[in-house]
Amino acid sequence: MNLNDLPTSTPWRMARRAARMNPSVIREILKVTEKPGIISLAGGLPSPKTFPVAEFAAASATVLAQDGPAALQYAASEGYAPLRQAIADFLPWDVNPDQVLITTGSQQALDLIAKVLLDDSSRVLVETPTYLGALQAFTPMEPTVVAVDSDHEGVLVDDLRAKVGTGDDKARFLYVLPNFQNPTGRTMSEARRAALVQAAAELGLPLVEDNPYGDLWFDTPPPAPLTARNPEGCIYMGSFSKVLAPGLRLGFIVAPQAVYPKLLQAKQAADLHTPGYNQRLVAEVMKGGFLDRHVPTIRTLYKAQCEAMLTALTREMAGLDVQWNRPDGGMFLWVRLPAGMSAIDLLPKAVERNVAFVPGAAFYASDADPRTLRLSFVTSTQEQIAAGIAALAAAIRDLQGS
Amino acid sequence: MNLNDLPTSTPWRMARRAARMNPSVIREILKVTEKPGIISLAGGLPSPKTFPVAEFAAASATVLAQDGPAALQYAASEGYAPLRQAIADFLPWDVNPDQVLITTGSQQALDLIAKVLLDDSSRVLVETPTYLGALQAFTPMEPTVVAVDSDHEGVLVDDLRAKVGTGDDKARFLYVLPNFQNPTGRTMSEARRAALVQAAAELGLPLVEDNPYGDLWFDTPPPAPLTARNPEGCIYMGSFSKVLAPGLRLGFIVAPQAVYPKLLQAKQAADLHTPGYNQRLVAEVMKGGFLDRHVPTIRTLYKAQCEAMLTALTREMAGLDVQWNRPDGGMFLWVRLPAGMSAIDLLPKAVERNVAFVPGAAFYASDADPRTLRLSFVTSTQEQIAAGIAALAAAIRDLQGS
Repeated sequence: MNLNDLPTSTPWRMARRAARMNPSVIREILKVTEKPGIISLAGGLPSPKTFPVAEFAAASATVLAQDGPAALQYAASEGYAPLRQAIADFLPWDVNPDQVLITTGSQQALDLIAKVLLDDSSRVLVETPTYLGALQAFTPMEPTVVAVDSDHEGVLVDDLRAKVGTGDDKARFLYVLPNFQNPTGRTMSEARRAALVQAAAELGLPLVEDNPYGDLWFDTPPPAPLTARNPEGCIYMGSFSKVLAPGLRLGFIVAPQAVYPKLLQAKQAADLHTPGYNQRLVAEVMKGGFLDRHVPTIRTLYKAQCEAMLTALTREMAGLDVQWNRPDGGMFLWVRLPAGMSAIDLLPKAVERNVAFVPGAAFYASDADPRTLRLSFVTSTQEQIAAGIAALAAAIRDLQGS
Repeated sequence: MNLNDLPTSTPWRMARRAARMNPSVIREILKVTEKPGIISLAGGLPSPKTFPVAEFAAASATVLAQDGPAALQYAASEGYAPLRQAIADFLPWDVNPDQVLITTGSQQALDLIAKVLLDDSSRVLVETPTYLGALQAFTPMEPTVVAVDSDHEGVLVDDLRAKVGTGDDKARFLYVLPNFQNPTGRTMSEARRAALVQAAAELGLPLVEDNPYGDLWFDTPPPAPLTARNPEGCIYMGSFSKVLAPGLRLGFIVAPQAVYPKLLQAKQAADLHTPGYNQRLVAEVMKGGFLDRHVPTIRTLYKAQCEAMLTALTREMAGLDVQWNRPDGGMFLWVRLPAGMSAIDLLPKAVERNVAFVPGAAFYASDADPRTLRLSFVTSTQEQIAAGIAALAAAIRDLQGS
């Protein structure tokens, strides 16, 4: 019998979770924005101007000359010891390097945390709205995601108490992004942080704190991390994507001993270890306090671009009943369209006028507010931002008139 | 109320799967082997002599000079297009670059495949014995792993038919490593490959073919991959870890359209994308046919080291009733101890004599043969191999005499 005589299609039966996994809305939009001439206010791509290319070139030469074979060999799943030490030293509370787990971007941290803490149908709490990548990372473990009501400072503690659940249905953790949140750009105040950590400790609710943007403040640093206030009750996630470069895929977890060993085992199973070459490059670039000199230049750039966007919004949206916030740092701001208008309906009109954004609906675990949208002020230049906001205002007028 | 007044320990409730996740036996053994002076025949670490450090240094300079901002930016989850093309061109059957998904090492490929194809309690078939890292990658999805009886050529097709299951319990796939298998070093013959692909097609059983070692043949290339014989029924996994360097964590999947989109979504959720810098480095190093010149030097080295191990085994194990195989390539050979002897009992005796190996039991999904052990001939020098095998023989005598 010849293979040609056999049924040609093998029946690939998918796991249940595959039905829940869908293409990232953002990545689909980003494909649209690759059209030449379009101004993208959609993606969360750091400005390439901020990438220290020369420093990475120097570090590449140094690492390969001094430590080439080790940099190219298999390595410990925990991560490169000097980088773990540098991270512990850099963080603003007492962190032991043994608590630091290097991850392949902070997206992997979300995957590992989901694997270790979420069963199918486990309750997990998120902000309203929340980071889309977190929802995507949690989805394969098939949890029940519950959105906690939030205001301009983040989660509302009373609603957290109402939604934490009990017994087997008690939430496994709350995922929270306190600084210059993706997507809203909002920051959790000192008072809200104190209340949240207090409530979580009373409730016995672990917190998963994601802090990719915390160093990108404009005028004053944000309040201390949640984890600094109760390290045994929190997992902290950090990233080098916004202060050095995302293309190296370097993030980290700081976890208490109660969960670190299982996260480490999940890491081994996921990709053995994060590339040792990349870890050494970042450790080399960080030597001599480079971040202390480099990060302020990113802050200055992003603050200017944010102000350009705010100025353009004030100018272009006059009379349109559009609302937006004023972030204290980060990469994004949050816009609310006039009553009755949907950001999803607006997007094609905007793309016709050569500007793109992300409809806010993508960031809600449930009950999306269709009027919201996210604007990034870091990828485009100030001139592009001004033109892009003008085009967005025109698109809103198009939709109102249609 | 002060935080200090609260219960200090947050109750971290783990997912069910966490109870099944355990430290890698091999990584624990590797820690023992870091003791100074020990000869490790345990780990699967490629010889650092084979790492093209100078080529990576040149490629690092070129990539950052010519394409620095793009190399350091976020990138497509599918992978870097020129690398996907180079992989498609390199493989010995007709592969479309659109079928290639770049992964963060081939370990991540296993994680993605498990996520997309395995539910809890799904039947999944493996060889006897099989790659430990695959068992670890599958475990978080809580499948039922069923070992198919195997001989010196790999899985026995009759036992595959007996164990494939029916209805909801039908196996989701067979995971198979046909070339110079980890851990045994065995190779699947042409006849067995043909019979296996035929049987899988008849049974409607997908195959997951892992081929990290296929280029490391000593005298003649292995038979064509299983996937080349039925691309729509197979997922193929490859790696640059053994032909260039493992520390870059670069592997890939070739998948049919029936599963590619879901693997891609799982990849997005897992780490967004594999480091773009690393992908460009490998694409740059591969230009001009570098692998065609480089890989033969690895083959020559490993063949000589394998022969050194075989010679030492013949000399040192004389009269000890120890059996071993003669691999046609790869990194490992497989040893069977005298009747009644356990490799796990032998390990501490061997470590006392400054040599380490991996007990075979680690590689069995069930019904381990306690007499087996894996030896790597690639990490140590020929002199260390000779001394290591002598020490191993002495340890066997120690255990026989005790």
